[in-house]
Amino acid sequence: MSEVTTVGVLGSNGKVGQAIVAGVQAASDLTYSAGVDKGDALTDFVESGTQVVVDFTHPDVVMDNLKFLVDNGIHAVVGTTGFTDERLDTLAGWLADAPGVGVLIAPNFAIGAVLSMRFAQQAARFFDSVEVIELHHPHKADAPSGTATRTAELIAAARAEAGVGPSPDATSIALDGARGALVGDVHVHSVRLAGLVAHQEVLLGTQGETLTIRHDSIDRTSFLPGVLLGVREIAGRPGLTVGLDALMDL
Amino acid sequence: MSEVTTVGVLGSNGKVGQAIVAGVQAASDLTYSAGVDKGDALTDFVESGTQVVVDFTHPDVVMDNLKFLVDNGIHAVVGTTGFTDERLDTLAGWLADAPGVGVLIAPNFAIGAVLSMRFAQQAARFFDSVEVIELHHPHKADAPSGTATRTAELIAAARAEAGVGPSPDATSIALDGARGALVGDVHVHSVRLAGLVAHQEVLLGTQGETLTIRHDSIDRTSFLPGVLLGVREIAGRPGLTVGLDALMDL
Amino acid sequence: MSEVTTVGVLGSNGKVGQAIVAGVQAASDLTYSAGVDKGDALTDFVESGTQVVVDFTHPDVVMDNLKFLVDNGIHAVVGTTGFTDERLDTLAGWLADAPGVGVLIAPNFAIGAVLSMRFAQQAARFFDSVEVIELHHPHKADAPSGTATRTAELIAAARAEAGVGPSPDATSIALDGARGALVGDVHVHSVRLAGLVAHQEVLLGTQGETLTIRHDSIDRTSFLPGVLLGVREIAGRPGLTVGLDALMDL
Amino acid sequence: MSEVTTVGVLGSNGKVGQAIVAGVQAASDLTYSAGVDKGDALTDFVESGTQVVVDFTHPDVVMDNLKFLVDNGIHAVVGTTGFTDERLDTLAGWLADAPGVGVLIAPNFAIGAVLSMRFAQQAARFFDSVEVIELHHPHKADAPSGTATRTAELIAAARAEAGVGPSPDATSIALDGARGALVGDVHVHSVRLAGLVAHQEVLLGTQGETLTIRHDSIDRTSFLPGVLLGVREIAGRPGLTVGLDALMDL
Repeated sequence: MSEVTTVGVLGSNGKVGQAIVAGVQAASDLTYSAGVDKGDALTDFVESGTQVVVDFTHPDVVMDNLKFLVDNGIHAVVGTTGFTDERLDTLAGWLADAPGVGVLIAPNFAIGAVLSMRFAQQAARFFDSVEVIELHHPHKADAPSGTATRTAELIAAARAEAGVGPSPDATSIALDGARGALVGDVHVHSVRLAGLVAHQEVLLGTQGETLTIRHDSIDRTSFLPGVLLGVREIAGRPGLTVGLDALMDL
Repeated sequence: MSEVTTVGVLGSNGKVGQAIVAGVQAASDLTYSAGVDKGDALTDFVESGTQVVVDFTHPDVVMDNLKFLVDNGIHAVVGTTGFTDERLDTLAGWLADAPGVGVLIAPNFAIGAVLSMRFAQQAARFFDSVEVIELHHPHKADAPSGTATRTAELIAAARAEAGVGPSPDATSIALDGARGALVGDVHVHSVRLAGLVAHQEVLLGTQGETLTIRHDSIDRTSFLPGVLLGVREIAGRPGLTVGLDALMDL
Repeated sequence: MSEVTTVGVLGSNGKVGQAIVAGVQAASDLTYSAGVDKGDALTDFVESGTQVVVDFTHPDVVMDNLKFLVDNGIHAVVGTTGFTDERLDTLAGWLADAPGVGVLIAPNFAIGAVLSMRFAQQAARFFDSVEVIELHHPHKADAPSGTATRTAELIAAARAEAGVGPSPDATSIALDGARGALVGDVHVHSVRLAGLVAHQEVLLGTQGETLTIRHDSIDRTSFLPGVLLGVREIAGRPGLTVGLDALMDL
Repeated sequence: MSEVTTVGVLGSNGKVGQAIVAGVQAASDLTYSAGVDKGDALTDFVESGTQVVVDFTHPDVVMDNLKFLVDNGIHAVVGTTGFTDERLDTLAGWLADAPGVGVLIAPNFAIGAVLSMRFAQQAARFFDSVEVIELHHPHKADAPSGTATRTAELIAAARAEAGVGPSPDATSIALDGARGALVGDVHVHSVRLAGLVAHQEVLLGTQGETLTIRHDSIDRTSFLPGVLLGVREIAGRPGLTVGLDALMDL
């Protein structure tokens, strides 16, 4: 990390893009080299000597962006959604022809959320019981949240693989909904409360003890430290990397 | 509280009774005067000069116990269940003829639980949103717990009285059960987890802030401080008192 | 609350003032009548038929503002600091000559913080142990926070008044600072953490159970619901009221 | 794990030993074969065909116990304290001559505590700030707890290794002790409260988000699931294993 890395941003005029530009500019080991938005040319990245580009754009344009970057030997950190297995295969093909170039595709850059899922997955098989509570602002349309559903799926898979049965539950008289929703065999509870942003607790319990992994995200910029982590690490990881945790050496 | 109060225990051989005897014996301002269980005579309390009797017995015998105690000018602190309005009326009638005698009937002696319900009720009307999460060991048969149901009812009533509408909730796509059970218009979530005993959180939220009132009970003896509080206060409260909070000057 | 109240704002161009104006405009039972800032005349409130004025200005000007408002029969909700006993006495004198006019002076308008302090104070004497943990962003200069210090003082006073001794503590070998700071005989711990805003927990414990009162403030606008509560209630409380809780009928 | 393992217990008459015997007897994949306490012969383990022995005894006798077990091809799971580097070297020497025999030495068998330390260590370098709060019953003599000190040391080492500086802290005016104790450069806070047993929170924060890892131990038997995990795994891990986490494939 002693040398300065030059960083460009795709979608640099958007809300997320602007936050990334500011984050890069504030980091002493990074230099902001070029921003590209609608109407600008991708060649700006080449001309400015950009080493890593961050792409938070749109599924319609991200593949073209990546083709250009890989062809020009520029690493990429990508938060754009819509990566099907087919798209990942195509991308891996391009990277096979560009040794030394690294691309990170990640659905979630909040470091706390990524670690929280990973730890839940690792711990799940050692406890008799696991449940998930997610808590969000009341404007959210879906319940449970996508992160909670994904977390519960990872927990259920880890327990199934280890041969651990469902959490014990003697409930025989219940009000409808009291025990939450079932994702696999994991109970998930969704709280909606004014004054909250995005929060999640994984509760794990066994005889006489419990372990709670809680993640609180109270600011829309919580993706930023994860993006900068990706920017700093991707040059050292040639080829395709999926998921921020793959860069974290956990 | 400078004088020593003499305290007797009904059901003194049971598990709860034994814990109460031990608690009385450990308190420097109380003296244990007599224990009565099946086969013993209630007159033991009179002969031993008992001032206050604690009754954790059975609905079948509690009214006879109380008739005797009131007639003999002995105060009572009662945790026995089954007090209908009719029974309370009968008891109030006896007490009308025994000026100076006090009887406390309380469904819950855990001070933390009592305060937690009271605070939830007081705070409920000042927040846009309120939800309840209760967490118990996995051997529990009912969901939600009786305490959580009662708490939610108190919250719903306080909000209705203040003209506060339901908590905002934009949920449009939900897995069955994700948003919990509805008690009145309050969402209640029941977690069952190995390693827990009995726990409850009331979450209240408004613009930019939340207030959480959490009660953890991890030991079956958590009723004891409330019983001793009742014993110390009841002599100063002639007549019928229902609920420990009525003695707490909140 | 069926009639619409007309509300004016002093310091309406400042950050706080703008948030209050927006909050008044968003409330269906309130109408924003006039804003006054440097260079504007206080008579605008009279001409616009303003019933209640909110003052978040400066100690240098607030007394002149209040003299004008009281003389003109306008109620006031005041978040400006610097109210000495002498100032409160002067204000009470003015109000004695203006029957029907109400003024609220409050150091803290965050409803959750106000309730949290009140509940801590009420509960303190019923528990063997009480400690306070406050958690803030790492840019904060003072530790403990002013709110935590005030909370601990209220707790210590409530316990002293009830004759409750210090919390039990068998610590005999301790690293310097481990047990926190002492405010009265209450231990207070200050956490400073990136990603936090302003949070506080009061922990109360007795045999087998604990009660935790937690307040989280994650947004600078959390004073707004309390200001609107003051605006709605002050017309019904002639004279001087100090502290938001005095309006809350707890 | 389909075959039944025969398990013996050293110190089988003690409080901990009795809990282990009961735990082995309750597990369908384990059979309790023999208990040895003062006055009994270690040869009972050989005669009863014991495969794994659990040793929670005393530093004075544990080395003799282990010599016998290793010589007789019996695996051991050891919670006894006092293992210096010298003792571990001696033990490793014995095991080198007994291929196939496994010995686990672990200072902490509470699975939640072990995972909580591991996760704190893994996560520490990804966050700007880390602090530790430990909370215990008021009869505890030392502050911070041994587990909290060890956790903070692991955190400090992980951050030092990754080149992460101290947590940001602008505190300039502080009451003595408010910011806790320093272990390395990690702030540790010790709460002592009636109604608690043993609890710990590791708080990690970065821009806009926090991750909290909380461990609650409310029962003296919380070591049991970890002991049974060791019993089930040790036959498959010949040689010396130190620390329960080494068996957990994290």
